[in-house]
Amino acid sequence: MKITALAGGVGASKLLDGVSRILPPEDLTVIVNTGDDIEMFGLYISPDIDIVTYTLAGLVNPATGWGLTSDTFHCLDLLLRYNESERWFNLGDRDLATHIYRTQQLRAGKPLSAVAEQVCKTLGVATQILPMTDTHTPTTILTDEGPLHFQEYLVRRGAEPKITGIRFENIAQAQPAPGVAEAILEADAVLLCPSNPLISIGPILAVPGMRQLLQETAAKIIAVSPIVGGASLKGPSDRMLAQLGMEVSATQVAKLYADFLDVFILDQQDSREQPAIKQLDLQVVLANTVMRDLESKMALAQTVLTALA
Amino acid sequence: MKITALAGGVGASKLLDGVSRILPPEDLTVIVNTGDDIEMFGLYISPDIDIVTYTLAGLVNPATGWGLTSDTFHCLDLLLRYNESERWFNLGDRDLATHIYRTQQLRAGKPLSAVAEQVCKTLGVATQILPMTDTHTPTTILTDEGPLHFQEYLVRRGAEPKITGIRFENIAQAQPAPGVAEAILEADAVLLCPSNPLISIGPILAVPGMRQLLQETAAKIIAVSPIVGGASLKGPSDRMLAQLGMEVSATQVAKLYADFLDVFILDQQDSREQPAIKQLDLQVVLANTVMRDLESKMALAQTVLTALA
Repeated sequence: MKITALAGGVGASKLLDGVSRILPPEDLTVIVNTGDDIEMFGLYISPDIDIVTYTLAGLVNPATGWGLTSDTFHCLDLLLRYNESERWFNLGDRDLATHIYRTQQLRAGKPLSAVAEQVCKTLGVATQILPMTDTHTPTTILTDEGPLHFQEYLVRRGAEPKITGIRFENIAQAQPAPGVAEAILEADAVLLCPSNPLISIGPILAVPGMRQLLQETAAKIIAVSPIVGGASLKGPSDRMLAQLGMEVSATQVAKLYADFLDVFILDQQDSREQPAIKQLDLQVVLANTVMRDLESKMALAQTVLTALA
Repeated sequence: MKITALAGGVGASKLLDGVSRILPPEDLTVIVNTGDDIEMFGLYISPDIDIVTYTLAGLVNPATGWGLTSDTFHCLDLLLRYNESERWFNLGDRDLATHIYRTQQLRAGKPLSAVAEQVCKTLGVATQILPMTDTHTPTTILTDEGPLHFQEYLVRRGAEPKITGIRFENIAQAQPAPGVAEAILEADAVLLCPSNPLISIGPILAVPGMRQLLQETAAKIIAVSPIVGGASLKGPSDRMLAQLGMEVSATQVAKLYADFLDVFILDQQDSREQPAIKQLDLQVVLANTVMRDLESKMALAQTVLTALA
């Protein structure tokens, strides 16, 4: 069974860690949000691609879910002496190698997708990891304090400013990266990972043509709820939904995907939402979606695969 | 006494280390060769500026004379997995911070001289360190195997290919960096450090207008021989001189500077060259020019200062 996953960062990579331990790597393709991409210290950082790649390489820092395990911060120490104002963004020494390499390749004219492929090859990741697009489409969070790059909103400002809107810059000029359309059309199943629906899955769906691909594909499409018990397990999904006037519920997430979705995996503690989601003409599967360890990651992955079989 | 030094890398920085321990830092200005500058991994590396800066900051790796002391190489380890072909150039984690910062600033439109100043400020170096020019003028070594960037010739190829010529790229378009002309014209003395006359001091002298400044200045100009006992103490000066059909001698070096030089510091073991150098209308001072430790660095620095007094 060939599965194509749509993924953000840490939440997605936990589930994909589980899936990749069950499925042969060549049967999994991951389309990753690049709305979080940002230039720091003149280096092009692609946080979600790196989180997914490092995770599938078995190299991710387990304490944070991002960065490389046992990394050191010697370069950053001096970088911050040169540029104190960037003290909000952590980059380890080995992690920096990925950013330096990516920046060099992009400046030499290589597309982001080719760089992602080369990073996978170097780190021994056989799963195909595709950026959603090769166009730089940074996510801008419109707030009551003015527009902020998503990373500034999330990391520097701790998701404190009140959101009034979200803008995906340059998105009208973007198209799916090479391989993305095929990965969706030729998959047996498409998995929307439990990522922020607004700023992780949202940017992927906003790439022109992407929703149509999901509507057209014969693949069964399944989503895992990132909202459990009325809150996001990680990150600001809950407050973003609320501030944008939406309900903070799994049902609300299902609504955002309803035009192409087949199956929705709902956390057991939200079982009372089952009827509302079924009304969206979706199949609902109840499961424990909270992934605290490898066992729970693999159990949720198995639930996904069983629902798709 | 205000001294302006013309400097290459390791040999120069040893003497400057001695000088800077005697002279107040604001009385020393260093004009540094940038012909060695090279882009590696997409980062702009300025080896001689860094060697001089790190040395005067007291941070240079004493074992090599370049790089930062106690630096680690975690980033490079992964960078080389991404790009195996660059395995000839060593960059430590903290050292990389300087290159990342410089590259970012240059790409943002800052001139090299402004970046050098900011690096000095951050590392607590009160001595003014100026690149010879803000124009990128890489030194090409013409060899029987074709043209090579100087760093490729020296580091990657171990100075093996036979030299047929030297070319300073873009040098006709270059001009002395801001502050260079004033530093030469307003100095009480100019010191040519014991650096390779062809590819360390040579590029500085090749910047249009530089020789005229040295001829015009009222400063006393002194050079320390980089050739001792018919060989270079470090680096390929000797074989380069020989392959270009020149004599491998202190006298030959003196000849290259004779049009503006006043005093030549000759190593004691080359005392038989004294008459030949005096014939160039130069004052000759005999000294031990081999700097093996702090004591010999300071002794040579004191000899220079005494000769200039």
